[in-house]
Amino acid sequence: MKNTIGNSLTVTLFGESHGKAIGAVLDGMPSGIEVDEEYIASQLTRRRPKDALSTPRQEKDEYSILSGVFEGRTTGTPICITIPNADTHSKDYGEMQYKMRPSHADYTANCRYNGFQDYRGGGHFSGRITAALVAAGAFVIPALNKKGICVSTKIKSIAGETAEEKRNAKILAAKAEGDSVGGVLETAVTGIPAGVGEPWFDTVEGMLSHAVFSIPAVKGIEFGLGFGFADKMGSEVNDQMYVDGDNVKCYTNNNGGIIGGITNGMPITFNTVIKPTPTISKEQNTVDIIKMENTTISARGRHDPCIVHRAAVVVESVTALVIADMLVSKYGTDWLAK
Amino acid sequence: MKNTIGNSLTVTLFGESHGKAIGAVLDGMPSGIEVDEEYIASQLTRRRPKDALSTPRQEKDEYSILSGVFEGRTTGTPICITIPNADTHSKDYGEMQYKMRPSHADYTANCRYNGFQDYRGGGHFSGRITAALVAAGAFVIPALNKKGICVSTKIKSIAGETAEEKRNAKILAAKAEGDSVGGVLETAVTGIPAGVGEPWFDTVEGMLSHAVFSIPAVKGIEFGLGFGFADKMGSEVNDQMYVDGDNVKCYTNNNGGIIGGITNGMPITFNTVIKPTPTISKEQNTVDIIKMENTTISARGRHDPCIVHRAAVVVESVTALVIADMLVSKYGTDWLAK
Amino acid sequence: MKNTIGNSLTVTLFGESHGKAIGAVLDGMPSGIEVDEEYIASQLTRRRPKDALSTPRQEKDEYSILSGVFEGRTTGTPICITIPNADTHSKDYGEMQYKMRPSHADYTANCRYNGFQDYRGGGHFSGRITAALVAAGAFVIPALNKKGICVSTKIKSIAGETAEEKRNAKILAAKAEGDSVGGVLETAVTGIPAGVGEPWFDTVEGMLSHAVFSIPAVKGIEFGLGFGFADKMGSEVNDQMYVDGDNVKCYTNNNGGIIGGITNGMPITFNTVIKPTPTISKEQNTVDIIKMENTTISARGRHDPCIVHRAAVVVESVTALVIADMLVSKYGTDWLAK
Amino acid sequence: MKNTIGNSLTVTLFGESHGKAIGAVLDGMPSGIEVDEEYIASQLTRRRPKDALSTPRQEKDEYSILSGVFEGRTTGTPICITIPNADTHSKDYGEMQYKMRPSHADYTANCRYNGFQDYRGGGHFSGRITAALVAAGAFVIPALNKKGICVSTKIKSIAGETAEEKRNAKILAAKAEGDSVGGVLETAVTGIPAGVGEPWFDTVEGMLSHAVFSIPAVKGIEFGLGFGFADKMGSEVNDQMYVDGDNVKCYTNNNGGIIGGITNGMPITFNTVIKPTPTISKEQNTVDIIKMENTTISARGRHDPCIVHRAAVVVESVTALVIADMLVSKYGTDWLAK
Repeated sequence: MKNTIGNSLTVTLFGESHGKAIGAVLDGMPSGIEVDEEYIASQLTRRRPKDALSTPRQEKDEYSILSGVFEGRTTGTPICITIPNADTHSKDYGEMQYKMRPSHADYTANCRYNGFQDYRGGGHFSGRITAALVAAGAFVIPALNKKGICVSTKIKSIAGETAEEKRNAKILAAKAEGDSVGGVLETAVTGIPAGVGEPWFDTVEGMLSHAVFSIPAVKGIEFGLGFGFADKMGSEVNDQMYVDGDNVKCYTNNNGGIIGGITNGMPITFNTVIKPTPTISKEQNTVDIIKMENTTISARGRHDPCIVHRAAVVVESVTALVIADMLVSKYGTDWLAK
Repeated sequence: MKNTIGNSLTVTLFGESHGKAIGAVLDGMPSGIEVDEEYIASQLTRRRPKDALSTPRQEKDEYSILSGVFEGRTTGTPICITIPNADTHSKDYGEMQYKMRPSHADYTANCRYNGFQDYRGGGHFSGRITAALVAAGAFVIPALNKKGICVSTKIKSIAGETAEEKRNAKILAAKAEGDSVGGVLETAVTGIPAGVGEPWFDTVEGMLSHAVFSIPAVKGIEFGLGFGFADKMGSEVNDQMYVDGDNVKCYTNNNGGIIGGITNGMPITFNTVIKPTPTISKEQNTVDIIKMENTTISARGRHDPCIVHRAAVVVESVTALVIADMLVSKYGTDWLAK
Repeated sequence: MKNTIGNSLTVTLFGESHGKAIGAVLDGMPSGIEVDEEYIASQLTRRRPKDALSTPRQEKDEYSILSGVFEGRTTGTPICITIPNADTHSKDYGEMQYKMRPSHADYTANCRYNGFQDYRGGGHFSGRITAALVAAGAFVIPALNKKGICVSTKIKSIAGETAEEKRNAKILAAKAEGDSVGGVLETAVTGIPAGVGEPWFDTVEGMLSHAVFSIPAVKGIEFGLGFGFADKMGSEVNDQMYVDGDNVKCYTNNNGGIIGGITNGMPITFNTVIKPTPTISKEQNTVDIIKMENTTISARGRHDPCIVHRAAVVVESVTALVIADMLVSKYGTDWLAK
Repeated sequence: MKNTIGNSLTVTLFGESHGKAIGAVLDGMPSGIEVDEEYIASQLTRRRPKDALSTPRQEKDEYSILSGVFEGRTTGTPICITIPNADTHSKDYGEMQYKMRPSHADYTANCRYNGFQDYRGGGHFSGRITAALVAAGAFVIPALNKKGICVSTKIKSIAGETAEEKRNAKILAAKAEGDSVGGVLETAVTGIPAGVGEPWFDTVEGMLSHAVFSIPAVKGIEFGLGFGFADKMGSEVNDQMYVDGDNVKCYTNNNGGIIGGITNGMPITFNTVIKPTPTISKEQNTVDIIKMENTTISARGRHDPCIVHRAAVVVESVTALVIADMLVSKYGTDWLAK
C-alpha cells in the first residue's frame, strides 16, 4: 500500500528533500518499550554525511517525536517522528525541473506524478527520506536486541575493493573525476528463532526484499549463497543438519537461514547491491522534458560520490523493521515488550 | 497476508502435494475478458515434467474452473481454479515424516506448523503448488498481450552452461549421480508504460521480488545490471537519455526499466537464481526430528535433477500477475478489459 | 480487498449460485486444531431451508475439504472448502437476465460487472454463498469455545413480532401473498477478554460491521443500546463500574462490551436488521435493461418469504471469524490452538 | 491495519490530546489537485467548540502541511498534516490516571496498552484526534465536488428533539445539570455513479461503517430505511425502478443508494447514532485501577455536554475519505484529478 509497509508493525513515510520536514509514522509498537533517544540520534549520525566521502550537505537531523511516547516509553499508539529540513539550497536544483538526471528518478517521477512532483533535491525520491526509516528502525532495534536478535549490515565491497583504505581511495578518485561508485552490503540477523515466515507469499526473503528495494539505488538482493548457487551441485551446497543439544543446526548456511521461505534458526544472511550514485558532474546526454529535446547535463548541487557506506545503517534499519513485523505477527502484539 | 498476494488483483493459493487438490483463487479480474482454456492447458504443459530431464511423476493437471467464468468470459467475481492430485505415491515419503531433507522445507515446515503439516511430498511447500500459479497467470497473460505487454522468461544458464545441449548434458550427468543442479533465469517485460510503481514501498522491484521469492528454490533477484553495478562507475552505467519522437528513451537499459522504483518505459529486465533441487539420492547428514538424533538420508521418491527449465513458466506467470496487479491499481478495475 | 476479509485469519469467498461450486479459503488457522466434520455439517444444516418458512430449493451442501486438513487436524496452511451446486433450476431465471428485480442486486451487479455477471439465481450475490461462510466459521467456533468464548445469534423480531408462533404466522401470511418480511437478529459474544480492538480504525464495531454488512439484506447494525442512546442522558446510560475480585465489571452493558473501539470484558452485544427478501411474486415496476424500457416483474423461481431465521447462523459465523481474527492478531498465530 | 484506513487512498492518524501534536498522513491523493487552505481551515472551524453548547477548551487548530503539497497543488506523495496541541490543562486530568470514567475509553485503553497509554485528556482516544480526520477530508471534498459528488451530514435529532431551538435547550439543560445528551446524524452522498462497491466484503455499507465506527461515541449505523425495514413487507419497501432517459432510477430510496453492497446511482443515505458524551460532572460509581477498589468520580476538566453537532463535520469527512478511496480503487490513481 504505497508509502506504508508492514502487516502488524507498520511504517508510513512522508516528506520531500526540500519541504518543511520528512518523517515517519511507526504503528503497532507494543506499549511500554523504553525509548532511547540517544540511540536514535546515534543511528541518524551513522547515516549522515560526515567527511570527504560524502555530500557537503549538512543536516542536523534534529528529530521530534510528536506522538506515541509518554514518560520515556512507547504508549502503543502511533509514533510520529519528524525531521525538519534545514540546509536546503533549492536554487542549485532549478535546472533539474526540466533536465532529467540519467538513472535518477527525475524522469520516472515526472511520469508518475504528471509533472506535479516537488523536484527540488529529488523530492520524495531523495535518499534523505531514509533518515526517517533509520529513526523508525531505532525504536525497534533495542527491543529486538533485548530478545537476543541482532541485525548488522557491513560493507562487503565498494568499487570492487574490500579493504577500507582501497575502498576510500576509489571513492575519492571518483569524486575527483566528478564520477561515482557502487558496492555491495552484507547483512546478518542473528538470534532469530526457527519457524518464522510463510511459504506463500510472505516468505522471509519476499518480505525483506520488498522493503529493501525501496532504499534508493538498491538493484539486487541475494540470500545466503545467492547467485553463487547457479553453478553448484546440490550435494555441494545443501545445508546438512545435525543435532546440537535441543536444537537442530546446519554445518553450512548456504541458504542464509531461510528454507521454504521460513527461518531455520541459522543466521539470516543476504547481500544487497547498491548502484553508483546517478548524480555525477560529468557531462551526460539527457532530455529537456519541457522542450522535449536532447540536451546534456553536468550535475551541480551537492551530491555523494558513493552512498554504500551511508546505506548500511538504512539496510540495517529496514531489516529490523521487517523482522520485528514478522515476529509481532507471529507472537502477538505485546511480545516485543515482554 | 500469507497465502494471498496482490492489492487490486489478488491470488490466493491452497493445496498440498498429496491432498485432494491444489488450486488458486484469482480475484479482481475485470469482467468480460475471454478465457482461453487451451492457453491455460498449454501453460500447464510447459510446467509439467515431460522428459528425462525431470521427475517421472506424471500429473495430467486437468484443472477445473469452479467460479468466476460464465459463457467463456470472466464475470469479475473470484475465479477459483482447482487441479486434482492424482499420481501420488505417498508411501515413498513415509520416512520423510521424521527424516528432514537438507535444504528442503521439511524442517522449517515442522517448526512453523508444530509438526501438524502434511509432510507427504513436501505438502504445501511442494513445487507442485506452482501449477496453480501458472493457471492463474494464464488468465492474465492474454489480457496483458492485448494491451501490448509481453512477459518472457528464458534460461540464462544451468550449471554454468548457456548452450542448451551442454545444459542438458549437465542435468543428465547430475541425474546419473543422484545429484542436482541450479541455474539462472532471465525475464523481460516489454510494452509497459512509464510511470508505473511507487518510490516507497511498492517499487516495481519490491513488488516483483516479494512474489518471485515465493517460487521454491529462488535465492536471489537482480534488476538490469544487478550485482554487475558493484564495480562500475556511474558514468559507465548511467542510462543516458534521448528524445525519440514523442517518447523518451535510454541508450542503455542498465536499470532494467525501473528507476526510483518506477518504470521508465524501457523493458523491465531481471535475473533470478534457482538453487539446485535439494532432494537428491546421494547420502547426506541430517536429523531424525522425532528421536532428535543424527542420521543420514538418501532421497527415494521421484524428484527432479533440475527445475530451472520448469521454473521459467512459473516466473513468467508470477511476473504477469504482479504487473497486472500494478496496472489495475493504477488505471482502474476495468482497464485490463478495455 | 474485495472477496477477502481479515488481517491474520482471512476468508476468501468464491462461487455463483448456479455455477459448479461455491466455496471459501480459510487462511491463518493455526496448525493442530481438531476439525469436527459433524459440527460443520450441523451448522450448514442450520442455514439450509428446511420447512414451509423457506424456499423449496434443496441443497445437500455436501462440502469437500480440499486442503489444509491432515489426519483430522488443521495443518496451518489454507483450508479450501467447496460446496457443489446441485439443485439448480437455471431456466427459472432466464427473464432475470434483463428484468431487474427491485431491491435485489440484479441491477447493481449489471453496473459493476458491465453485464458479464452470472445472473442465474443471483450469481455471486446469492444468499447461497453464505453457506461457505458458515462452513468457514464452523472451523473457528469450536476453537473459540475451547477458549471460553461463545457466539450466539438469536431472532429478536420478525415482522415486528417477537414470539415464535406469531413470527411464523407472519412469514406464512407473507408467503401466501407472494410477499416477504424482515426482522432483527441479536448477537452476543461472551468470554472475550478486555483490551481487544483498536481506537482507530480497527475498532471491534468497525471490524464486525465491515464483515456483517456483506451478508445479503443486512441494512443496519447497532452495538449495545445502539439507536436507543439517541434520547438518553449520559447519567442514565453510562456503564458504571465496580471491582469484582480481580476483575472490573459494569453494572449495565449499554455499550455492548465495547468502549473506545476496545472490549471491556463485558459481553459484546449487537443487533442487525435484515430487510424483507426483495424477490417477491407480487407484481412490481422495474426496467428491462436490454431494451431500456419500463416493464413489470413477478418473480418466479424458488425464493424465501423471510431469511431472518436462516441468517442467524450466518451472522454467528461471520462474528466468530472476525473475533478470531482479532484475537489471533493480538495474541499471535498459534494462540487459538493452545 | 490499526491506525491506517483505506485501500488506494489511505489515512493514517497519530497523536494524543495533550502531546506535542496530532495529525494525519493522507496517501494516494493524485497529483495536481489544488489545495484550498481556507477550506481546510473552515472545516476545522466547523468542528471546533465555539459557543456555550461545547467545551470551553479553545484550540486554534493551526495546522501545518509538512509534505505532499508543492506550489499549491498535491504532488501525489503522502501529505502529512500536523496540528499542534496548545490549550492543554493537563493538571485537570491527574485523577483520571487511576479513576476510570464510566463509558469512556479510560479503562479499555488501560487494558489495551497495559497502563502505558498517555491518559491525559483521553490521549489517543480523544475526540480531538478527529480534527486530523477533518483536515484530511478537506483535501478530498473539493476534488469530489468537482466530480459532482457531494457529501452532507446534518443533525437529525439531539436528545429526541429535531428543531434547533429545542435541541439547544436540551443541551444547555444537560450542561446545567452536569449531564450530557446524544443524538442522530443523517448523511447523504449525491452524484455517485452506479456500480461502486463489492458484494463480498468491501460493500459500500461495510467500508463506510468500518470507518464511521472509529468516530468516538458512534454506536450504530443504518443505511436507507435501516432498522425501519424490520416490520415492513417487501412489497412496501422494495425500491421499484423506472427508466429516466439513459438512466435507471428508483421511485423510492429505501435502500439508501446501495443494493448488494454496490451503489445503484441513487443518493447514499445513512444515519449514525452518537451516544451522550460519557464525561459528566454528576457523581458516578467507578473503580480506582491502581488500588483496585470501588470509588466515585465527578469529572472535572472541560468537556462537552453534547458532541452531536461537532461530530457532523467528522462524519462528513470520514464519508468523503471512504467514498474517494472506493472511487480511486475503481477508476484508477489519477481519476480524482482529471
